[in-house]
Amino acid sequence: MRQYKIVLVIADGLGDRPVSKLNLKTPLEAADKPNIKEILKSSMVGLMDPINAGIRPGSDTSHLAIFGLDPYKYYRGRGAFEALGAGAELSENDVAFRGNFATVNSDFMVIDRRAGRKLPEADELVKLLNQEINEIDGIKVRFYHGTEHRVAVVLSGPGLSDRISDTDPHEINKKLNMSYPLDNSPEAKRTAGVVNKLTKRIYEVLSNSPINEKRSKEGELPANIILLRGAAKYQRLPQFSSYTKINPAAVTATALIKGICKDLGFKVVTPPGATGGIDTNYDSKAQAAIELLKDYDFVFLHIKATDAASHDGLIEEKVKAIERIDSVIGKILDHYGSDIVLAFTGDHATPVELKDHTGDPVPFLLYVPYSIISDNVSDFNEREARKGSLKIIGLNVLNLLLNYSNREEKFGE
Amino acid sequence: MRQYKIVLVIADGLGDRPVSKLNLKTPLEAADKPNIKEILKSSMVGLMDPINAGIRPGSDTSHLAIFGLDPYKYYRGRGAFEALGAGAELSENDVAFRGNFATVNSDFMVIDRRAGRKLPEADELVKLLNQEINEIDGIKVRFYHGTEHRVAVVLSGPGLSDRISDTDPHEINKKLNMSYPLDNSPEAKRTAGVVNKLTKRIYEVLSNSPINEKRSKEGELPANIILLRGAAKYQRLPQFSSYTKINPAAVTATALIKGICKDLGFKVVTPPGATGGIDTNYDSKAQAAIELLKDYDFVFLHIKATDAASHDGLIEEKVKAIERIDSVIGKILDHYGSDIVLAFTGDHATPVELKDHTGDPVPFLLYVPYSIISDNVSDFNEREARKGSLKIIGLNVLNLLLNYSNREEKFGE
Repeated sequence: MRQYKIVLVIADGLGDRPVSKLNLKTPLEAADKPNIKEILKSSMVGLMDPINAGIRPGSDTSHLAIFGLDPYKYYRGRGAFEALGAGAELSENDVAFRGNFATVNSDFMVIDRRAGRKLPEADELVKLLNQEINEIDGIKVRFYHGTEHRVAVVLSGPGLSDRISDTDPHEINKKLNMSYPLDNSPEAKRTAGVVNKLTKRIYEVLSNSPINEKRSKEGELPANIILLRGAAKYQRLPQFSSYTKINPAAVTATALIKGICKDLGFKVVTPPGATGGIDTNYDSKAQAAIELLKDYDFVFLHIKATDAASHDGLIEEKVKAIERIDSVIGKILDHYGSDIVLAFTGDHATPVELKDHTGDPVPFLLYVPYSIISDNVSDFNEREARKGSLKIIGLNVLNLLLNYSNREEKFGE
Repeated sequence: MRQYKIVLVIADGLGDRPVSKLNLKTPLEAADKPNIKEILKSSMVGLMDPINAGIRPGSDTSHLAIFGLDPYKYYRGRGAFEALGAGAELSENDVAFRGNFATVNSDFMVIDRRAGRKLPEADELVKLLNQEINEIDGIKVRFYHGTEHRVAVVLSGPGLSDRISDTDPHEINKKLNMSYPLDNSPEAKRTAGVVNKLTKRIYEVLSNSPINEKRSKEGELPANIILLRGAAKYQRLPQFSSYTKINPAAVTATALIKGICKDLGFKVVTPPGATGGIDTNYDSKAQAAIELLKDYDFVFLHIKATDAASHDGLIEEKVKAIERIDSVIGKILDHYGSDIVLAFTGDHATPVELKDHTGDPVPFLLYVPYSIISDNVSDFNEREARKGSLKIIGLNVLNLLLNYSNREEKFGE
């Protein structure tokens, strides 16, 4: 059997519901998609529940499922993925947090959860913290900058637990929380203690830094604290290449997705101009995927713009993002149309009018470069996908890709 | 996101097969359902396997699944639910039985498994038993009246087991069975012994009671024994409000369903005229649901009439019951049409020509009060439901309701 290469394109938050301003079309229905339409006659389509019917996924749990790992078994919180995505090297049993540079007053009341969000000095602040704070009570501490105000904080050492609460109060005008243990173990108690001391040290270092002095003078809010959340003990995921026998690569600019892919052993590429936002450079991403297909048999292309537009309620931007993804798919097919199977889907729905994830099923398309019994649909969207033959969950995706690329190992004989 | 209230309407045994006398229509096809037809354009429809494809459910296992609890994990027999439904207060590790008042001759041969079925004295008999029998070998015994000839018997005390056989021979002209242990534990041996002594005591008390003397004089069969079946050790179910964060209420007149709902922590209401039978008062049930929706975010409405008609082979009665349920749904929507998501389905099929449960999938409808991509079906029944987008199992139902009411918590971030 000829083996084909595999391309998986995920538009984050792609799925949607009928939108008033689009005459009750969904963004996917409203978008002009000549390239996708072109391949429908050689595709199977349908609906995918990323986790299961009605379950409302995060991008992390959904990507795990789509990469073939049951999130109920493997998901251990987002902190470790974010840290990996921000460049951390993690060892087993390190405890990682997601964090925000934020602004508190002298009573530790939170004034702004993002220190004004514009924080060009974030890299410098992270460098300063790594210089000034090396360890707390024998636990090694490292800081990594994600994007904008986002940081990852990693604790390394013996006897740590991730069963502790956030210091982030998740609201302004509330006092920073003390971290407390979520179970009775001495490890949780110890880790919460370390986190509370660490928080105090961070405040001392940041509030005395010349960088914040300068920000205050310029009328900007000082980034004088890090709000911590989502403690996660790092346990390395199974390696994609070991459970699929395929060498994978990913094109993504989103820290969380980069982290998941790194942990799975993907080669991860963030091409120039790829931002993880609405302003991303689509051409650059298409080009990176095309390059990687020379050397890798599985190339995953993640585009965050659809989700970013949805969270901000930007209907037209979401439609535009989908149209650009269509042209990315067109470019890849121009190069490799007869050599690849290609799946296009979302990791979950983010209805642009709701601005948040929902548990609706998402349309799923699987193109193959040979004759198949295709689903007779006239377009690829939430409505037409219902008429397709696929009715799957996220955990089915990888097996479908392996099967139709003739790469699936036989189960039994 | 705006959160909607949730209404779940379950017509017991709703599903059916083509019926000769209905020109091979199913009762659901034959029934006139103007209110349900009205909401089809704002609904998703499909088929639900209450447990899984081909599995033939009881009402108990199916309701557990629909309420989000895997029956393979949580189902421990019907006895405890019946006892709760009949008003018992159970403690962990009590062993509960379902029972029938029945008639045996002096050789303990079963003459009638329901003591003639008409048993207006059942309450008195239960009272008498509770007076005369308090304990057997240090095990506390209590009796509860369900409906008609049905009773629940509860044993409390240390070292009990539910791994024992029924005393009910399940047929007439057979001798009452001795209960025997179903495993080698001393607990099972002890409990079987208690049950056998108890059965003898019950016979003594009942056969000497003036109530049965009077019945015999009036030509009625004496209710001189209780046939016991379905021993179940009580273990409290998880609380619905703790795994959904929603306060639930139920409208039902059926002991088994009342028991399940009570155990899950529902507010349970049996409105005046609600009988759990064909003669139930539909208006009263609709009114109760409408009232409860003022204070509760999840209201479950159970109607037994469809199943009762099916078990008795009453085709026209089943059709009529469905038509009345349609008007109940209409009344609820008149009050709350824009504030609720509403699901309508059955807990299993009870084909009226077979008079028993089958494992066929049942039609499922989910109405939402906002724009969705509706399934373009012309009616709601076993035939049209196949064209819908939903192909689910019972365990998916709660997540779908939570998702489309915007109440589902995110799994991951």
